[in-house]
Amino acid sequence: MTEDEIVTAIEALLASHPDTLRVTRGDDAALWQPSRSHRSAISTDMLVEGVDFTREMMSLEDAGWRAMAANLSDLAAMGARPVLATVALGFPQDAIQKEVLELYRGIAECAARCRCCIAGGDLSRAAVWTIAVAVVGEVRPSNEKLRSGGRPGDVLAVTGPLGAARAGLFGETAGLQALKRPEPRIAEGRFLATSRNVAAMMDLSDGLSTDVRRLAAASGCGAELNAIPVADCARVLAQGRGEDAERFALAGGDDFELLVAIRPRAFSHLAARYAKRFGRELKKVGVLRVEPEILYKGERVEPSGWDHFAASADR
Amino acid sequence: MTEDEIVTAIEALLASHPDTLRVTRGDDAALWQPSRSHRSAISTDMLVEGVDFTREMMSLEDAGWRAMAANLSDLAAMGARPVLATVALGFPQDAIQKEVLELYRGIAECAARCRCCIAGGDLSRAAVWTIAVAVVGEVRPSNEKLRSGGRPGDVLAVTGPLGAARAGLFGETAGLQALKRPEPRIAEGRFLATSRNVAAMMDLSDGLSTDVRRLAAASGCGAELNAIPVADCARVLAQGRGEDAERFALAGGDDFELLVAIRPRAFSHLAARYAKRFGRELKKVGVLRVEPEILYKGERVEPSGWDHFAASADR
Repeated sequence: MTEDEIVTAIEALLASHPDTLRVTRGDDAALWQPSRSHRSAISTDMLVEGVDFTREMMSLEDAGWRAMAANLSDLAAMGARPVLATVALGFPQDAIQKEVLELYRGIAECAARCRCCIAGGDLSRAAVWTIAVAVVGEVRPSNEKLRSGGRPGDVLAVTGPLGAARAGLFGETAGLQALKRPEPRIAEGRFLATSRNVAAMMDLSDGLSTDVRRLAAASGCGAELNAIPVADCARVLAQGRGEDAERFALAGGDDFELLVAIRPRAFSHLAARYAKRFGRELKKVGVLRVEPEILYKGERVEPSGWDHFAASADR
Repeated sequence: MTEDEIVTAIEALLASHPDTLRVTRGDDAALWQPSRSHRSAISTDMLVEGVDFTREMMSLEDAGWRAMAANLSDLAAMGARPVLATVALGFPQDAIQKEVLELYRGIAECAARCRCCIAGGDLSRAAVWTIAVAVVGEVRPSNEKLRSGGRPGDVLAVTGPLGAARAGLFGETAGLQALKRPEPRIAEGRFLATSRNVAAMMDLSDGLSTDVRRLAAASGCGAELNAIPVADCARVLAQGRGEDAERFALAGGDDFELLVAIRPRAFSHLAARYAKRFGRELKKVGVLRVEPEILYKGERVEPSGWDHFAASADR
């Protein structure tokens, strides 16, 4: 079973219980309206030792940062401002208090950087370190961005170069830093959310090849990718391995950049404003198309980013 | 290290990061104010196979129900109405889709019963089944109840008989049902929350002997317990083991009844209204006192309910 298959089955099961609340599911975060003027977003993400990280790969402080960053990135993808988080933490029997606090320090540092308050938590014994964070954010109803807003012809763009975290999995130093301390693109998400010409947005936690398929499918489109911005460290590593750097970055997960679909006429102006504001390029990677396939330079792309369940998952 | 010790250390660590938001922590759920008229509550709770349940003890559907019920019980303890939940689910490599859906069915059934919407989730591989739920609820600011509102002289009361879940751990049939399918006391919590004379409230997930200490400490009091209402199945089991039934119930965790501190003059009237409304007794178990000890029939009580970390944890 693949992650998307099982999510679909769960959605079908939940559909049999009528919602008491209008909630938008199936995006990076779910949206609901606690009062007339407010739209809230909520998301959750679990990190498991041995699956998402190893103690050899990173410190517990890094793992805490990563867990919080992955969640905050989901709020960024909705154009939301972080408000608060809860932390459910499972740790093994031989863990000592110093280790629990080390992990919490990483969580708290990442949260503080994004002005997110830790509202509460739960502690439990577990076989391995397990970190389940849930985050709540707020977004102006006029700014909220779903995956489903794209249409054929929209420009696909990413907020920064890709592939660094994948390079980190191969031991590349700068890549390891990207893997351990990803920066949620909160400011970028909020900036892009204010533009009416940004039609769809999501984060790239599972890798561009997997996530572009999700955005395109939600928007009832296919996509053609033509140019992938590659992080320097990923380019060096891929070339050393004799691999095409863009394909290497295309297949990499754990990049916390954002993927956006932008109305074509607005792209240049928005990209110029983005570059001025963030000192980085809003890089065009392709376009949404009517045809349902996902193409890279004319060839079909199979999903090759991170899938938690596919036996052949290759990071 | 005990659970309360490590929570205190985490609180100290978090205090070094100034809150960007006024959040009330340290209760069953944290409270925040998304808009002027609204008060929201959020809580999270993690269930781990082999720690909180075993596959022999209960089905995955039961485990899902339990995970959701434990979270909803925290909202009940704040007098809050459930709104939505997120579910982060870790499952082992050999799990099949049918099992994931079985677990989700239990989650969805319990949520639907309490009119709580499943807003989103995350799926991950894990060594064992791991269920981390976060719930959001709403409460009128005038109705919110903390653990800290009690004062000496307040009557301590519980919303129903105790010990059934502990009896279930010993294999008692009716107790097993209580362990597998606990009922969050949402309606009871909301009813009690409307009374100004209910000064403090919490749920009894960790057992009366542990939790009464927490409520009393938060209120700057001690407590004396005199009479514990015991579930029939727990009484039968305790007597069969030659144990005092009230002491057996006092030490039992996983009861999802609520513990309340009530202004003494208001108790009789409130208990009568409660009995009329719910067909069960709001049972007086003791009083809050100035002296910091926790006593049961004049003797000191050591915390003996469920502590996830204490090596001697005895359910």
